[in-house]
Amino acid sequence: MPLEFSHTTLGQRVLFGAGQAASRLAEEVQRLGAQRIMLIASASKRELAQRVAAEIDVVVNYDNVVMHVPIEVAQDARQVARKNAVDLLICVGGGSTTGLAKAIALETRLPIIAVPTTYSGSEATNVWGLTEAARKTTGIDDVVLPTTVIYDAELTMSLPVELSVASGLNGMAHCIDAMWGPHANPINQALAAEGISALATGLPAIVQDSQDLAGREQLLYGAYLSAVAFTSAGSGLHHKICHVLGGTYNLPHAQTHATVLAYVLAFNMDAAPDARDRIAKALGADDALEGLQQLRAQLGAPDKLTDYGFTEADIVEAVKIILPAVPASNPRPVTAENLTELLQAALVGDDPAVLLESPASGPHTL
Amino acid sequence: MPLEFSHTTLGQRVLFGAGQAASRLAEEVQRLGAQRIMLIASASKRELAQRVAAEIDVVVNYDNVVMHVPIEVAQDARQVARKNAVDLLICVGGGSTTGLAKAIALETRLPIIAVPTTYSGSEATNVWGLTEAARKTTGIDDVVLPTTVIYDAELTMSLPVELSVASGLNGMAHCIDAMWGPHANPINQALAAEGISALATGLPAIVQDSQDLAGREQLLYGAYLSAVAFTSAGSGLHHKICHVLGGTYNLPHAQTHATVLAYVLAFNMDAAPDARDRIAKALGADDALEGLQQLRAQLGAPDKLTDYGFTEADIVEAVKIILPAVPASNPRPVTAENLTELLQAALVGDDPAVLLESPASGPHTL
Repeated sequence: MPLEFSHTTLGQRVLFGAGQAASRLAEEVQRLGAQRIMLIASASKRELAQRVAAEIDVVVNYDNVVMHVPIEVAQDARQVARKNAVDLLICVGGGSTTGLAKAIALETRLPIIAVPTTYSGSEATNVWGLTEAARKTTGIDDVVLPTTVIYDAELTMSLPVELSVASGLNGMAHCIDAMWGPHANPINQALAAEGISALATGLPAIVQDSQDLAGREQLLYGAYLSAVAFTSAGSGLHHKICHVLGGTYNLPHAQTHATVLAYVLAFNMDAAPDARDRIAKALGADDALEGLQQLRAQLGAPDKLTDYGFTEADIVEAVKIILPAVPASNPRPVTAENLTELLQAALVGDDPAVLLESPASGPHTL
Repeated sequence: MPLEFSHTTLGQRVLFGAGQAASRLAEEVQRLGAQRIMLIASASKRELAQRVAAEIDVVVNYDNVVMHVPIEVAQDARQVARKNAVDLLICVGGGSTTGLAKAIALETRLPIIAVPTTYSGSEATNVWGLTEAARKTTGIDDVVLPTTVIYDAELTMSLPVELSVASGLNGMAHCIDAMWGPHANPINQALAAEGISALATGLPAIVQDSQDLAGREQLLYGAYLSAVAFTSAGSGLHHKICHVLGGTYNLPHAQTHATVLAYVLAFNMDAAPDARDRIAKALGADDALEGLQQLRAQLGAPDKLTDYGFTEADIVEAVKIILPAVPASNPRPVTAENLTELLQAALVGDDPAVLLESPASGPHTL
C-alpha cells in the first residue's frame, strides 16, 4: 500500500496534572510574559475560576458566557478586551467558554490559555463558531488555537457521570470516525488509537466510581486526543449519519452517537483492515466490534434508535439526505441499499455483526 | 497511576507521497506565497534538487553544504539569503543540508520547506547545530523548525541498504529510548510506537529488496516519527550510553546503537511495563525483547561491542562517565553495578535476557 497523505500538526503546549491547574497556570503566564489578563468563565464557574487563577493577577473578569457564542456576546467581549489592553485570554470552563475565548482571538489575535472543565475537546482545535440570527457559522483559523491547554482532572470531578459517559462516547466516536475520515492518515490514526485506549480505560472506571480521579484523567486525556485526531481527519460516515439524525429528526446527540457507532464500525471495518486492527488493539480486544460492544455493555449504552423517536418510516428520506454527504473516501462503498440496512439495524437494535461484509462481496479476513 | 506530563506539539505540515515531491513543492510554494526562493542542496544532489524544483522559480542556488554546519558556511549562506532578498528556504538533502537551512533561519527567521533525501529526521525537529573552531554548539529554537516537510520515498531509493538499515535502527533506538526519556509522556509514546511499527515493517523489506518502494516509505515515515518522539522525550539511558561509547571510545555510531539497544531494552523493560507493552505491540510480538531480537536477526544487526574496539578494560571508566549522565527518571534505578553488567553483556554479546530484572529484585511480570 503506498503511503500518501497530508497532515498538519497544530503546535500547542499541553500541561497535564491533577490538582496542578493553579500552579501550572501561574508558570505559564510567567513564561508567556503576559501582564494584562482577561479571565473568562461563566457565572456558575466563577468560584472555580478564581481558585484556578489564585496565583495570577487578572485585569478583567468576563462571565457573559452564552451557548454557541452569539455574535453580540463576542463583540462585547472583544471590546472589553481592547478597552482593557488585554494581552492574554484565559478561559476556564467547557466548550462555550473556550468558544468565546476563540471568538475574541479571531479578531484580536490574542493568545489563549485554556483550562477545560469538561470533555468537549474544543481547546485542542483551531475551529471557531459564532451564531448570528440563529445561524451558526464555523470556520478554521490557527489564531484561535489555544497556545497552551492546562488539563486538571480535579476540575472535572463534579461533572455528572451520565454526561461524562455521553462525552466520552462522543470522543470514542470521534476517534473511530477519524480512522476513515476524508483526511485520515496514519498519524491521526495513531493518536486516535491512543484516545480509544484512554477512553476505554476511563469510561468503565467512572461508571463504577464517579470520583475515580485516575478514570477522570484517562477520560480527559482521551477527549483531548479525540479532538486532535478528529479535527485533522474530518467527518466520516458516522458523523454524517448522526448529523442528519440529529438535525432533521431531532434525535438526541449523545444517544444517537452511542447507538450508531457500533453499526458504522461493523459496516466499515472489514473494508479497512488496518483501522480495524488499530481499534481492536486499542480496545485490548481480539475483534474491534466485540471490543466496542463489550465496552458499550459495561456502560449500559443505548442500543436502538426506536427508543429516541426514529421510525421505520423515516429511513427512506434519511438515506436520501445522508447519501450525498458521505465522503467518497469511505472504505466501503456506501449505497442506498446498504445504508438502508445500516439504519434499519440501528433502528431496531439488531446485532451490528449483520452488517459485516459478507464473504461473497469481498475477502472477509476476520 | 496519575497522568502527569508536559508536552509541546510542534506545529508543522507534513506531505507524504512517492513521486510527488515536485508537484507538492510547487503547491506549497504557492500556498505560502513565496516569491524569492533560495534552493539549498549539495553539489552531489544538485541534479536531484533541480528535478524537485522543476516547477518553481528559484532566485538563488546554494551548494556549499558542509557536515556539522561550520559557522563560516552559515554566515556566508545568511549573507547570500539577505543579498537576494530571499523569502523562503528550500533544502533538498540529508541532515547537513537541512542543518544549513536551519542555521540560516536561526538568524533570518525565514521559513523552510525541507525535502529530505535521507532518514536523518532533522527536518522534524527544532534543534539546530553549528560548529565553530571544531566545537559543535546545538540549541533549540522553534524558528528553525521547517514549516513544511515533503517526503518522497523515491528520493531515498539510491541510499545504500547498509546505510539505510543503520539509519533505520538509529530511528528504532530513538523510538525505544523515547519511551523513558526524561520528558517521556503518553503522546510521545504513542508516536514512538507508531514509528517502531513502521520501521519494523520497512527495515526487513529493504534488506530483502533495496528497491522496495513501500519499504522505503515505511522507513521514511518511521524516521520522521522517531525524530518527533525523541526530540520531545529527550535522551534516555540508551543515548547516554552510546554518546560515551562514541565520544570517548570512538566506537562507530550505527553499530554501537544497534548493539546497545537490545541490552537497554532488556535492562529497563520490566520496570516500565506500559512502555514494554507498547513496544511489543508495535513490533507485533508477544514479548518486546524477543520482537526486537527477531528483527535484529532478520537484519543481520551487529551483536557485540568487542567487534568495534571496546574492551573489558574500558568498562570501569565508561561506567564512571556514563553514570552521572543517566536521567534520574530512568524507570530502573541505574547503579555502577548493574550498569557494569549491562556493558559487560553488550561487550561479549551475551543474551540480553540476562539483564531482565530478577524476580528477587522486584515484581517480574513477564
